[in-house]
Amino acid sequence: MTGLSIIESLKPEDRKKIWVVIPPEVMGEILVQLHVEVARGLIEITEQKDLIKAVESLESDDIIDLLHVIPEPLCSKVLESIGVQERKRLESALSYGDDTAGGLMSLDVLTVQASQSLDEVLQDLRKRGSMPKATDNLFVVDQLDLFQGVLPISVLLTHDPLLMVSESMDPSIDGIPYQMSAEEVALLFEHRDMLSAPVVAENGRLLGRITVDDIVDVIRSQTDHSFMSMAGLKEEQDMFSPVIVSAKRRAVWLGINLLTAFLASWVIGLFEATLEQIVALAVLMPIVASMGGIAGSQTLTLVIRGLALRQISRINAVQLFKNELSVGAVNGVLWSFVVASIGGIWFQSVGIGLILGGAVIINLICAAFAGASIPLILQKMNIDPALAGGVLLTTVTDVIGFMAFLGLATLFLL
Amino acid sequence: MTGLSIIESLKPEDRKKIWVVIPPEVMGEILVQLHVEVARGLIEITEQKDLIKAVESLESDDIIDLLHVIPEPLCSKVLESIGVQERKRLESALSYGDDTAGGLMSLDVLTVQASQSLDEVLQDLRKRGSMPKATDNLFVVDQLDLFQGVLPISVLLTHDPLLMVSESMDPSIDGIPYQMSAEEVALLFEHRDMLSAPVVAENGRLLGRITVDDIVDVIRSQTDHSFMSMAGLKEEQDMFSPVIVSAKRRAVWLGINLLTAFLASWVIGLFEATLEQIVALAVLMPIVASMGGIAGSQTLTLVIRGLALRQISRINAVQLFKNELSVGAVNGVLWSFVVASIGGIWFQSVGIGLILGGAVIINLICAAFAGASIPLILQKMNIDPALAGGVLLTTVTDVIGFMAFLGLATLFLL
Repeated sequence: MTGLSIIESLKPEDRKKIWVVIPPEVMGEILVQLHVEVARGLIEITEQKDLIKAVESLESDDIIDLLHVIPEPLCSKVLESIGVQERKRLESALSYGDDTAGGLMSLDVLTVQASQSLDEVLQDLRKRGSMPKATDNLFVVDQLDLFQGVLPISVLLTHDPLLMVSESMDPSIDGIPYQMSAEEVALLFEHRDMLSAPVVAENGRLLGRITVDDIVDVIRSQTDHSFMSMAGLKEEQDMFSPVIVSAKRRAVWLGINLLTAFLASWVIGLFEATLEQIVALAVLMPIVASMGGIAGSQTLTLVIRGLALRQISRINAVQLFKNELSVGAVNGVLWSFVVASIGGIWFQSVGIGLILGGAVIINLICAAFAGASIPLILQKMNIDPALAGGVLLTTVTDVIGFMAFLGLATLFLL
Repeated sequence: MTGLSIIESLKPEDRKKIWVVIPPEVMGEILVQLHVEVARGLIEITEQKDLIKAVESLESDDIIDLLHVIPEPLCSKVLESIGVQERKRLESALSYGDDTAGGLMSLDVLTVQASQSLDEVLQDLRKRGSMPKATDNLFVVDQLDLFQGVLPISVLLTHDPLLMVSESMDPSIDGIPYQMSAEEVALLFEHRDMLSAPVVAENGRLLGRITVDDIVDVIRSQTDHSFMSMAGLKEEQDMFSPVIVSAKRRAVWLGINLLTAFLASWVIGLFEATLEQIVALAVLMPIVASMGGIAGSQTLTLVIRGLALRQISRINAVQLFKNELSVGAVNGVLWSFVVASIGGIWFQSVGIGLILGGAVIINLICAAFAGASIPLILQKMNIDPALAGGVLLTTVTDVIGFMAFLGLATLFLL
C-alpha cells in the first residue's frame, strides 16, 4: 500500500488524527490525490492559514483542482490570499468547466519564439533554473501568443545548438480547443501516446498545457464512474463514510429499484387467477426474468463501454442492433431448448416446457433490443447511461419476462 | 472520432478492406493500440513479410506487446527475422509475465555514469541524435549496470554544465522490482505523477524502463476489466465480432446464471404447498429477492473497487464489515417498513405485510454480509472477484430472499 491508500483505508476519525501532524506544505500534494469525499472531510478540519499554505505549495493546475473541492466561502478566502496576478489567472481558469480541456490545463507553460536559436533557448532555460513538471515539448508562439507548433525537448538536446527553432520545431501539432471534453482529451492522449499538449483559444492563442498525469486521473475516474454508476454509487464514494451518510445515499437507489420491483409484482398480480390454478408457474417464472436480465446486461455493458470510448456512431448503430438481436436470438433458441426440457421434465408437462421455452426466446430478444437501445436513448437525452441504464433494463426484462411467461400460460394452459 | 476508433467501430469485413491499403510501416503502430481481439483479426490477414516490417518499425516495449498478440508459429518466425542481439533481448523480455513490471518495460534506456559532467552527457546526447520516447530522466548506473538514481532532463537543461552527474542526480528514486504486478506499478505512477520509472533485477541491476503511456493502457484495461467482468464479458471483447463467436461466449455466462436461476426455483418449489394456499406470496416474492440483489451489488461493487485500488487490508476489513452490515440494517429497517405497508394494504393482510417486511430486513443484512465477504474470499482463492462475484451474490440473495419470505409465511400464515 502506498501512503495515500493508507489514508483512504482509515476510518474518518483515524484520518483526522494523522492529518493534524502533517505539515501544511505537504497537505496540498496529498489533498489533490485523495478522492473528493475524503479530501473534503480533511479540508473541513484544516485551519485556514494551513490551507492557504497548502494551496500555495502547488502548481497551478493542482491549485485549480483543489479550489474546485474547497467549499465557499473558504474558497474565496484562499483565493484572496494569493497574489493579484496569480489570482487573476486562476480565476479565469476556474471559469472553464471542470471536465473540459480548459479545466484540466495548467498555466505553467514554457514558450519559445521561432526566431530564436536552440542555443538561446538552452541559455534561457539555464537562467530560469527550473522547468514545469512533465515538460517534453516547449511551445512555439509568435508575438501575439498564437500557437505555432512544438519544439520537443529531445530535439533541443540532440540537435545542433546553432539551428533555429523554426528549423527544428514540429509545426504539425495542433492545439486542443479549450472547450473539448475531458474524455475526448483523454482518448487523444491515449491514442497518440502524448505526455503533454497545448490548449488554445478559438483564435489560436495559447492558453495553457495539459499533462499526462492529469489525464491518468481522468481515465481512472471515467472508467470508475461507469463501474460505480451501474450500482448507483458515485465514484467519489468513500468506503468508510459514516453509516448514516452511506445509508442515505444508497436508500435512494433502493427506492428507485423498489418501484421496478413493484411494477414487476403488479404484472404478476394481473395473472393471480392463472397462478392459483397452476402453482408450477410461480416456481419457474423467476427463470425467465433472470435470463433476460443477464443477457440484457451483457448488451448494455458492451454498448455503454462503446459509447464511452466513442466507438458507436450513427453509421454503425444499425449494425450493432443487428448483431445484438442475432446474438439474442441464437442464445434464445439454445437456452429456451435447455430450459424447456428441464422445466417440462421437472413438472411432467410438455405444455409448461413449451411455454417456458417460448417466454425465454421472447425475453432474450427483447433484452437485446432494450440493452442496445436504452443507453443510446439515454445518451441522446443527456442522461448518464451507466447510472440509469441498469434500472430501466431490469424493468423491461422483468415486465416482459413475467408477462410473456404468464400470458402464454393463460392463453394456452387454462 | 480518432482514426483508431474508426477502425474499431467498423465491421470486420470493412476493417479488412481498409487494412490492405495501410503501409506496413504504419501497421505496427496501429496494431499495438487496438483491442487484442481486433488486432488478432487483422494479424490473421497480414502477410508475413508485412508483419515483420510492422514489428521492426516499433520500439522494443511495443514489439513485446505485439508479440504477445501474434499467435504461434507466426510469432517465432517474426522473432527469427529480427537481428540476433535484439532478438536475445526481446526473448528475455518475453519471458517476464505480461502483467508484471518486466512485461511492461521497454529496453530503450539512456544511462549515464555518476563520474560524467553534465556537459559530457549533453555532448553524448547530441552524438546519439535521438532519445527514446517519454525520456524525462536519464538513469545513473555504475560499471556493473547497478542502478544508482536518476538525472532529470529538467536538471540537465537548467543546471550549470560544469556540474558532475553525481552532484546533480537524485539518488532517492528506487527502481521498480521486475516482478511487481502491473496494477501496483500503475498505482505507483498515479500516486507519484511519474512519466517513466526504472525497472531493476533482484541484485539492483537496471533492466529497463516503464513509460507512462503503457501505464495509461494498464489503467484503462484494469478498470475496463472490472466493468466488463461484472457482465461476464472480456475486456478485449469486440463489439462487432461475428454473431456466432459472440453468442458462444455469452452462452457460457447465461448457462452459469441459469444454474443460479434453477437453484432459486428449486427453493421456491420447496414451498409449493404454501404458494397453493396463498397466491399473493407469488406476486410479492420477487420484491424480496430484488431488493437484496440491489443492496448486495452496491456493497460488492464498493469492495471490488477497494480491492483493485489496494485500499482494503486485514486491518480495516473488520471495520468494512461493521459499516456495511450497519448500512444494510438501517436500509433494511427503512425499506421493510415501506414494503410492508404497501404489501399489507395491497393484499389487505397485516400478516403478509409483516412477513414481507421481515424478509426484506433479513435479506438486506445477508446481502451486505455476502457483498462484503464474497469478493474477499474470491480474492484469497485467486479467483477474479469482478467476474464471479455477481453470480455468487445473486445466488445468495435469491435463495435467502425466497427462503426467508416463503419460510416465514409457512411458519406464521398457514
